[in-house]
Amino acid sequence: MFRVLGRQHPTIRRLRVLRRDPARRRAESVLVAEGIHLAQEALATSRASVELVVLSPELGRTEEGRRLIAALRQSEVRCFETSDSVIQSLQDARSAQPILAVVRRPRWPPDSGLETAQPGALLAVAHGIQDPGNLGSLVRTLHAAGGTACFVDPGCADPFHPRAVRAGMGSMLRLPVLSEPTADLLPRLRERGIALLGADAAGEQEYQDCDLARSVAIFFGGEGRGLPPELLAELDETVRVPLQSGVDSLSVGAAAAVLLFEAARQRSATR
Amino acid sequence: MFRVLGRQHPTIRRLRVLRRDPARRRAESVLVAEGIHLAQEALATSRASVELVVLSPELGRTEEGRRLIAALRQSEVRCFETSDSVIQSLQDARSAQPILAVVRRPRWPPDSGLETAQPGALLAVAHGIQDPGNLGSLVRTLHAAGGTACFVDPGCADPFHPRAVRAGMGSMLRLPVLSEPTADLLPRLRERGIALLGADAAGEQEYQDCDLARSVAIFFGGEGRGLPPELLAELDETVRVPLQSGVDSLSVGAAAAVLLFEAARQRSATR
Repeated sequence: MFRVLGRQHPTIRRLRVLRRDPARRRAESVLVAEGIHLAQEALATSRASVELVVLSPELGRTEEGRRLIAALRQSEVRCFETSDSVIQSLQDARSAQPILAVVRRPRWPPDSGLETAQPGALLAVAHGIQDPGNLGSLVRTLHAAGGTACFVDPGCADPFHPRAVRAGMGSMLRLPVLSEPTADLLPRLRERGIALLGADAAGEQEYQDCDLARSVAIFFGGEGRGLPPELLAELDETVRVPLQSGVDSLSVGAAAAVLLFEAARQRSATR
Repeated sequence: MFRVLGRQHPTIRRLRVLRRDPARRRAESVLVAEGIHLAQEALATSRASVELVVLSPELGRTEEGRRLIAALRQSEVRCFETSDSVIQSLQDARSAQPILAVVRRPRWPPDSGLETAQPGALLAVAHGIQDPGNLGSLVRTLHAAGGTACFVDPGCADPFHPRAVRAGMGSMLRLPVLSEPTADLLPRLRERGIALLGADAAGEQEYQDCDLARSVAIFFGGEGRGLPPELLAELDETVRVPLQSGVDSLSVGAAAAVLLFEAARQRSATR
């Protein structure tokens, strides 16, 4: 069996700190993946490496969990056990999982995702998105639509927050997710000829009329307020999704799905 | 000023029960709207009526809150005050709001949203969606895309759960959101000639190739598992959103946004 750790064991304490402290997650360059599905993804992804796993007896109570335990025994990953209540105390109460994995974040070469040869870059830039779950969903949708990288301004939630990682469903491990102040990013994108588009409820073009098959970065603003006018003024174009009258905005997740899959559609049509 | 209610006042106790008990919300035919934006929406929507409002001193600390208090004073709505800590105890800790409104749910005539004259019905059917926030987002996206009604199978979360209402951003008050077992709904839709489409990652048609300008009901399954095979077998067609290789599914919110806005696009093109 695996070594059993108590509530005050240094590894459990470290997990407690990693859960609440984005600076510590960043300094250690790790993320905490919660649950069977994410743990499997982390084990299967060559770009990320699993540093250690903590599981609870609950994991052995399902067939899927027992298969994962067997796979972990065959692997070289350091595994520890703790009680169900300790593992729950390390997570959101609403849907605690029987396994946590500390995963080293993938390292990406400089300028990953900024390629402009056809099919060129399809970037999402998050600016002011406060909810980690919304950020995770954006990364998942971008990945599914064939996006090449996600940039996250420091004014957003931490894209490696446990809830973001969970909503991202493993996409954090496969797609470059890069923290960079929007002000620094703009000249880098301009230099490469990547079109800068703002998603805005009052945008000048309808999304279907916008060329999304070229290399583009689509900027998404925060819940409620959207992109700040100073930033919109710096972008090349603004795009909107036309809404039923009486509705004043879409959620950032829905707007991103519509725009990014329109980009995917245009790209597959021109291939 | 408004009458101040203590933690054990019957109205506060009732709010506590309404928060946790879907059966009580249903029996009373009410929903609890949290926050300034939703309270404003409820006051402005003629279909819904605000039964009472409870607010805390926190509300008077913002300009927007003070404007709402002034509007409430002019209105006939029964208003009560309670402490910040009591109002917080009636909500999710993560983002407690300084105002709660008990709102009578809108009543809809029978067969609301099932019209088949052009532009015909655009329905979403939720089957097995467990997260109230996902259900609320689906209703919001459907409303924004010009949908006509949302049906919710009893195996889903309660669409009038406070988190669903919050994610729905007022759309629950403006669009028919109807609880009905999928098994009863199918013959009613068939009788009217409404096409029954299942959103499925392995669907037979790509979504752009599917005629969504006719009267359609799009069925969306739960997080993770999607629609059950028995139900898929009963539908007329299945549609998929093509995904980047290596990604096996979209979130229900993203899939709904892509499909419903494709319907909106086809409908505006044929008008």
